[in-house]
Amino acid sequence: MDEVMPEKKPIGILDSGVGGLSVLRHIQALMPNENLIYFADQANIPYGPRPPAEIRRFSEEITRFLLRKGSKVIVVACNTASGAALEHLRSAFPDMSFVGMEPAVKPGVYQSRQGKIGILATAGTFGSRRYANLMARYAWGVVAFEDPCLGLVEQIEAGKLSTQETDRILRDALAPMLNAGVDTLVLGCTHYPFVLPSIRRLAGPGVNVIDPAPAVALQVQRVLRQQHYLTEETALRDVHGYTTGDARNLEMSVEQLLSQFFPISAIEWDG
Amino acid sequence: MDEVMPEKKPIGILDSGVGGLSVLRHIQALMPNENLIYFADQANIPYGPRPPAEIRRFSEEITRFLLRKGSKVIVVACNTASGAALEHLRSAFPDMSFVGMEPAVKPGVYQSRQGKIGILATAGTFGSRRYANLMARYAWGVVAFEDPCLGLVEQIEAGKLSTQETDRILRDALAPMLNAGVDTLVLGCTHYPFVLPSIRRLAGPGVNVIDPAPAVALQVQRVLRQQHYLTEETALRDVHGYTTGDARNLEMSVEQLLSQFFPISAIEWDG
Repeated sequence: MDEVMPEKKPIGILDSGVGGLSVLRHIQALMPNENLIYFADQANIPYGPRPPAEIRRFSEEITRFLLRKGSKVIVVACNTASGAALEHLRSAFPDMSFVGMEPAVKPGVYQSRQGKIGILATAGTFGSRRYANLMARYAWGVVAFEDPCLGLVEQIEAGKLSTQETDRILRDALAPMLNAGVDTLVLGCTHYPFVLPSIRRLAGPGVNVIDPAPAVALQVQRVLRQQHYLTEETALRDVHGYTTGDARNLEMSVEQLLSQFFPISAIEWDG
Repeated sequence: MDEVMPEKKPIGILDSGVGGLSVLRHIQALMPNENLIYFADQANIPYGPRPPAEIRRFSEEITRFLLRKGSKVIVVACNTASGAALEHLRSAFPDMSFVGMEPAVKPGVYQSRQGKIGILATAGTFGSRRYANLMARYAWGVVAFEDPCLGLVEQIEAGKLSTQETDRILRDALAPMLNAGVDTLVLGCTHYPFVLPSIRRLAGPGVNVIDPAPAVALQVQRVLRQQHYLTEETALRDVHGYTTGDARNLEMSVEQLLSQFFPISAIEWDG
């Protein structure tokens, strides 16, 4: 794809499943004229419990695919893959820019009035060196509560956003944190923003919930601007999605997850 | 809603049905931080064959609803309602800003190399004084072919975007124009962009198709900027939809129509 001008090349976004759509949504809103490719490795989901070496191998393969499709920047829109593979990807593809996820510990610490924050992520993220470094650098002086929300990624992949089981997982995760008085919750998995209404309801109005996706979208924009790779086109661009799983299944997820931001009411009318 | 700061008030968007979603999509992409309200008068669709006085009455009622919801600008995202009611709305609500639709005759004339353009709109639009004025002002020196695409709005409302019947309507509309050598097609109904893939396929690569929605979104932005009504918030905003018809039906249309811009492919993978 060397003959294509950099501005016209797509932004490549990868995740194990549908979680990265919560990041895609903010990238698309901030840069609606950019071509986007979304890659969901649904044949291998969940990444959370997998060994880091395996996640590195998957991420490298997906990166090669996204490069063949001409990606000008790659967004690792999966906290687990960022924790396991981001450094590896940067050394394996030294000419390529990568933007990864990390739990928003720094803003969480900054915003907490009580110095008590809750972090919801996956086991893989909690076990990563990237996370350990992050906590060592920013989390001193605060009490941090962690929960891997076991099963929550699978519930969200299955579209079960507001079932009893999803509520139970969240309640079990949040109860000890809330009892201990956390006033700030950090979402450290890109799947979790899709259950934000339930998280807010269970946590109550006094708790601030931080989704890092808007900050990640801004970082992607900064990277592209620095490289003069932002498009100057003004046409609205489509997204193309790829999945290693079932296409119809991902289509239905996209419809369900992205249309939850467009609630509809019927009204009585005598027009 | 006088206590709400103007920037936080929503942009109100109205249509007889789902067509205005083709405009909403561009408004949302251009101004992702604005609150949006979408009103679909699906109890009264289609507007095309209705007498102008009735459309004025409907539009005035919907405007009152959108004002009660605090709208800071109203987008009449329906060509038929713009043709029948826009002047009336501006005199009935002199303190309010309205942005309406009109067939993109001026850019169509400007872009046509052969001086032959095709205009696809509804019977109501073709019969309006607004359209007559537009043609009188801009269409001299070109040959303009018109077709009301009878039944097309209903097909799109029913989600039948690529059925044989939809293709037949489009083929019947386009055949005489294409035989006569038009090189530019103007979409004069906000429903029609949802069958753009079929229009492009039937018209062939040599014909330029103009959707006015991006220009309308820019006009909304200009109006808000002039009034210092653009939001300074950076949070992504949701949309709220209202319908005089069936809410679940509009929900499904939103999912289908807006997700067609996100095609999904399954890929073989041995990761």
